[in-house]
Amino acid sequence: MQAEIIAVGTELLLGQIVNTNATFLAQELANLGIDVYYQSVVGDNRERLRAQLQLADQRSDLIVLCGGLGPTEDDLTKQIVAEHVGETLIQDPLGYQKLLDYEKAQNQKLTQNNFLQTLILTNSQALQNPTGLAVGIFYTTKDSQKSYLLLPGPPKELKPMFRQVARPILKQQFPEANQLYSRVLRFYGIGESRLVTDLADLIATQENPTLAPYAKENEVTLRLTVKTTDESLAKTLLDELEQKIQLRVGQYFYGYGEENTLVKVVVELLKEKGQRVTAAESLTAGAFQRSLGELPGVSSVFPGGFVTYSAQTKIDFLQIDPSLIAEHGTVSQACVEAMASQSLKLAKTDYALAFTGVAGPDELEGQAVGSFWIGLATKEEVTSQFYRVAGQREKIQSRAVMAGLDLLRKELIK
Amino acid sequence: MQAEIIAVGTELLLGQIVNTNATFLAQELANLGIDVYYQSVVGDNRERLRAQLQLADQRSDLIVLCGGLGPTEDDLTKQIVAEHVGETLIQDPLGYQKLLDYEKAQNQKLTQNNFLQTLILTNSQALQNPTGLAVGIFYTTKDSQKSYLLLPGPPKELKPMFRQVARPILKQQFPEANQLYSRVLRFYGIGESRLVTDLADLIATQENPTLAPYAKENEVTLRLTVKTTDESLAKTLLDELEQKIQLRVGQYFYGYGEENTLVKVVVELLKEKGQRVTAAESLTAGAFQRSLGELPGVSSVFPGGFVTYSAQTKIDFLQIDPSLIAEHGTVSQACVEAMASQSLKLAKTDYALAFTGVAGPDELEGQAVGSFWIGLATKEEVTSQFYRVAGQREKIQSRAVMAGLDLLRKELIK
Repeated sequence: MQAEIIAVGTELLLGQIVNTNATFLAQELANLGIDVYYQSVVGDNRERLRAQLQLADQRSDLIVLCGGLGPTEDDLTKQIVAEHVGETLIQDPLGYQKLLDYEKAQNQKLTQNNFLQTLILTNSQALQNPTGLAVGIFYTTKDSQKSYLLLPGPPKELKPMFRQVARPILKQQFPEANQLYSRVLRFYGIGESRLVTDLADLIATQENPTLAPYAKENEVTLRLTVKTTDESLAKTLLDELEQKIQLRVGQYFYGYGEENTLVKVVVELLKEKGQRVTAAESLTAGAFQRSLGELPGVSSVFPGGFVTYSAQTKIDFLQIDPSLIAEHGTVSQACVEAMASQSLKLAKTDYALAFTGVAGPDELEGQAVGSFWIGLATKEEVTSQFYRVAGQREKIQSRAVMAGLDLLRKELIK
Repeated sequence: MQAEIIAVGTELLLGQIVNTNATFLAQELANLGIDVYYQSVVGDNRERLRAQLQLADQRSDLIVLCGGLGPTEDDLTKQIVAEHVGETLIQDPLGYQKLLDYEKAQNQKLTQNNFLQTLILTNSQALQNPTGLAVGIFYTTKDSQKSYLLLPGPPKELKPMFRQVARPILKQQFPEANQLYSRVLRFYGIGESRLVTDLADLIATQENPTLAPYAKENEVTLRLTVKTTDESLAKTLLDELEQKIQLRVGQYFYGYGEENTLVKVVVELLKEKGQRVTAAESLTAGAFQRSLGELPGVSSVFPGGFVTYSAQTKIDFLQIDPSLIAEHGTVSQACVEAMASQSLKLAKTDYALAFTGVAGPDELEGQAVGSFWIGLATKEEVTSQFYRVAGQREKIQSRAVMAGLDLLRKELIK
């Protein structure tokens, strides 16, 4: 059972819109256990769409087309598919009635081409459009070898039609599609290539569950996926594989889930403990506090903090002794620890993080681009750590934010 | 001259990431006058990638591949292309040296598979990676019939490599590309549909130059493109069209260029005037200061500022009178103006912006989600403005940052 997705539309080929439909459909089909081996984009062009259908016939059982169901001249998908499978186009009575009702409600005579949207293939199933006028189509060839699913291009129409109308049909049509169960593990502080090396034998021998690493910015995720109809077996298999993984790289593991982030985990830990954090940011110029501020409900754990980009603001805002800066410089252990402890005191929080370093492009106080200190103050003590990372300004700043979150997370779970 | 784009990566087929690379490359190739007739996505799979290359050979002159240049076992693109065109893989000396330097800077031994990233095809041109380690490749067959461009998958590496390294090569290789001259105008404060309505006749009658609007997050850009071999004629035609546009929507125009941003324009204006800005952020929790901090060399115009998320930090950090907050609340004109003038005083700058409002998900002080105040203090006066925008937390915060930048820009060009 193999599927492919064909998006039809010249605006995609020109890069005027992003092909989010392919992403959505790929996710939905994967969740149904239907393997998608190809995605393609073709313009509003008869010959090239015809050629693409011939190619798809050779390699796929289910061909999902999106786009080109509208009322204008360049909407060709239905016509070309009809010719391709040897059917003709007929009016769908329900869709036609809906269009008449719409015409009445609008109190405006619709141009004739609008009715093209309500045509379907002979011997096909019409898919009503919950949020628009173009009728979708599900068609299976007489020998039951190939199926074609035609969906409208606008995501606001495609998504509801898929979820409400097409998905139930696919579930029924392809019962062999096994259920998929996934678990996503998230790691910070280990690169993708090292993770893959540490788990090389598990990856090499994977079958069911499968094990897929993905490098994200500053972190790596591992997706474990089981194909089975038995939910409790799925859990057992995922638990077993996860246990092996945690034994090897568990020290870098920080949380579960595709939508999870290190900052979410840290904020959850703070909420659980009823504690609060502040920050004094030089190097990162607000990026750490911004990452907190993106989360709803963060006010219970984050009252605010300081951006002390210049030496003078470190003195003025944080009341750091100017002689300390004169003696040690701003990119120093002494300075970062003073920033952390002073901000803790001023904001009256349980934790304070301080960031100071060289984001570039030029070196600072004789220290290379990518050098930085992070300080962590608690009510009992202040500690600090030196880092040296490669990369450009934005990367250095985002690495520092993640490193700060990681320090705080480790303190919180101590 | 026909091109196609092949994105390689199982994560695309599973819908785990959106194929924004195809959109970016499609735009860039269109701007070079290179027609893209197909886009496709294929997984990290030898046979299917091989089959896709054979298909592409039959229909395209330039084949652009992205993804699969990384260090792990499923990164196959270079190997398969090498086999396909009958070349072998060799080490690129520059890329190799860069990796050694990186290893040294990281102070950590890299695993051997990392060096796979620095391999290129025999008889090919290595494309250095401005923001990463994987070396790109440009290869033309001996009979000059087909060209292959191999780019890394992460957009942060692909975009700079394309713009800085690959685009000049394509321009030289496909000289018809030299016949396009573009100018990008950027607008803030006007929506795409309104812009398109205001310029409807210019868009309807466009031919040479063409006029293409693009809606970006919180802004709209207009790309004017002339096709000609005469550079001075191009300039004249672009000037004439721009003049017509500026007459109608010039009040929303803030700058030129595809890489430009409102924050860059504001920082440039501050530098020109030798003036400095600070901020007190409640609603935006550091997002405004972070947008400044992303720019290199910003320290001359931005000494630092405050994140005063809670009422108490407004009092403690900014010395705002508690009775003012008790009387007016934090989401108020009185509070935002106090935040602006107090932060100006404490940071000793020429300008201060203050942000306070309701980012959601819950309403605050009886005010609806999306309501906010921005205050702007100068040495002479403090002014403020109320906004009410739709959308979710992140969108409200980013709208507020843009609105603040726009207020400051208008003050700077007064």
